[in-house]
Amino acid sequence: MSVFTPVTRRSLEPFLARYHVGSLVNFHGISEGVENTNYFVDTSDGQFVLTLFERLNYDQLPYFLGLMDHLHQRGVPTPAPRRARDGALSQPLLGKPAALVDRIPGIGVADASARQCAAVGEALARLHTDGQGFDGHRPPDRSSDWWQATAEALRPQLETDECELLDDELAFQAGVDRSHLPSGVIHADLFRDNALFAGEQLSGLIDWYYACNDRFIYDLAVAVNDWCVDEHWAPRADHWTQLLAAYAAVRPFTDAERVVWSAELRASALRFWLSRLYDRCFPRGGDLTLIKDPTPQRRRLERWRAGEALPLP
Amino acid sequence: MSVFTPVTRRSLEPFLARYHVGSLVNFHGISEGVENTNYFVDTSDGQFVLTLFERLNYDQLPYFLGLMDHLHQRGVPTPAPRRARDGALSQPLLGKPAALVDRIPGIGVADASARQCAAVGEALARLHTDGQGFDGHRPPDRSSDWWQATAEALRPQLETDECELLDDELAFQAGVDRSHLPSGVIHADLFRDNALFAGEQLSGLIDWYYACNDRFIYDLAVAVNDWCVDEHWAPRADHWTQLLAAYAAVRPFTDAERVVWSAELRASALRFWLSRLYDRCFPRGGDLTLIKDPTPQRRRLERWRAGEALPLP
Repeated sequence: MSVFTPVTRRSLEPFLARYHVGSLVNFHGISEGVENTNYFVDTSDGQFVLTLFERLNYDQLPYFLGLMDHLHQRGVPTPAPRRARDGALSQPLLGKPAALVDRIPGIGVADASARQCAAVGEALARLHTDGQGFDGHRPPDRSSDWWQATAEALRPQLETDECELLDDELAFQAGVDRSHLPSGVIHADLFRDNALFAGEQLSGLIDWYYACNDRFIYDLAVAVNDWCVDEHWAPRADHWTQLLAAYAAVRPFTDAERVVWSAELRASALRFWLSRLYDRCFPRGGDLTLIKDPTPQRRRLERWRAGEALPLP
Repeated sequence: MSVFTPVTRRSLEPFLARYHVGSLVNFHGISEGVENTNYFVDTSDGQFVLTLFERLNYDQLPYFLGLMDHLHQRGVPTPAPRRARDGALSQPLLGKPAALVDRIPGIGVADASARQCAAVGEALARLHTDGQGFDGHRPPDRSSDWWQATAEALRPQLETDECELLDDELAFQAGVDRSHLPSGVIHADLFRDNALFAGEQLSGLIDWYYACNDRFIYDLAVAVNDWCVDEHWAPRADHWTQLLAAYAAVRPFTDAERVVWSAELRASALRFWLSRLYDRCFPRGGDLTLIKDPTPQRRRLERWRAGEALPLP
């Protein structure tokens, strides 16, 4: 996991009493996710996921929870956040903001099929189009400013070859023109862990806590970077084609998006390489802490730099 | 997790074809467990858990899988292992022995209720009594020999106070008379993570890969050490009483067991303190590796040494 904040029955029962969800039966930490503390919670009325926000303030939550509510109402597969008796979508628990959402059936995807890729491409495009009516706005927290600041903090701890790759990529990215790209609400973290399938059915996109307003094509690059590569991080043509075709059937690409596609793939690999390097160099405490290996993101970055990406359809 | 061995569709499909379980739909790594690689596997016929055994040889598997089969048939809540078309309970996958068991509904227990403790006490007693008819035999792999060898490997890496506590406890344990204790098949790792509840119902005991033939009272101490303490590792009287009473209603305690009870609680805290220290000092590689903090086990050991354990009923 990471369970950063251990929850007890004594703390959870009064929290649940603030919702219309029945009484506590059982709960258990979920050992996934590296940002927040998550628990499965079973009550007499149903099954829920409880999230304690470890790094977010209350004023950021209305964006995430309001967005999930907005998308759920429009049929984009997302968990529905529950409103407390006072009408709010979050409540404090152990001094942290916390939310309760319906638990979606299904499991993540270890090794995607082309068909699953198509389902994810379609859902992502629907998020981008149906998100247009959402009136919240949140700037990206993993933008180029964050890349620079993180690179600064990491440099003293990196190997020479890591520093060279990083500096060269940052210089390249600084020269990319992103001024005419369609943007709006994006998920920003649509890895295979964050799409649940119940059998063949995409039951929900989860873990919305990087969502922000940014370039659609970057969001797509994050997904392709994870869903459409093989175990050596080389492109899988059938997956790549099906994800992008299903996406484009809902929202066709612009010419400006075609121009930056390869640069956006590099940007997505760079972003996750940086955050995993950071977590390796500066691990956080916790009862159980999950550290993800940075190497696979570096390998992807190297492939996209070598021109191995497939084009947009 | 730990996913030590990444599985792909290409490797999993021919493996599944050796069973009567339909065709692969989806699968996903389970980020729990520190010994083996586990995946949820959905097929056209049902939901399963796949385990790749990272440190076990084929000749050890018949014990574990045969035991689960034996207990499942007798109504002890355990997952049923599937037999392949050739009749075997395991098959090779990526060069490792692997097994497929039915996926049990439910979640583990973060903070037990007294009622859940009673359900676990009863199930543990039924395991000890119904296990009597099982004809396999396996010596414990975390016995006093293992304590000594592990302490030897750890000493150069430990703080002075850790060394002193360890050596003092090992000397105490060496003097405990365990010659007249009832024994048989035990689970040996019945933590809250390893009992799934679907609502109020104990749906299954899982993770049988430390099971062995050893003292029943030690198995009970492992469970009480985890299920019946509060967040400061002090005994919770109601949980403690209900777990032990439910156990004793199925299998009453002997006088010899009453004498060693406190020493067995110390032995169980020692065993898990040692293994967590070892994993901290000598971490294994893996895509995602979970390191559990040794401190809570040390705190328990200190409490049991201070005479804070409650007696057997």
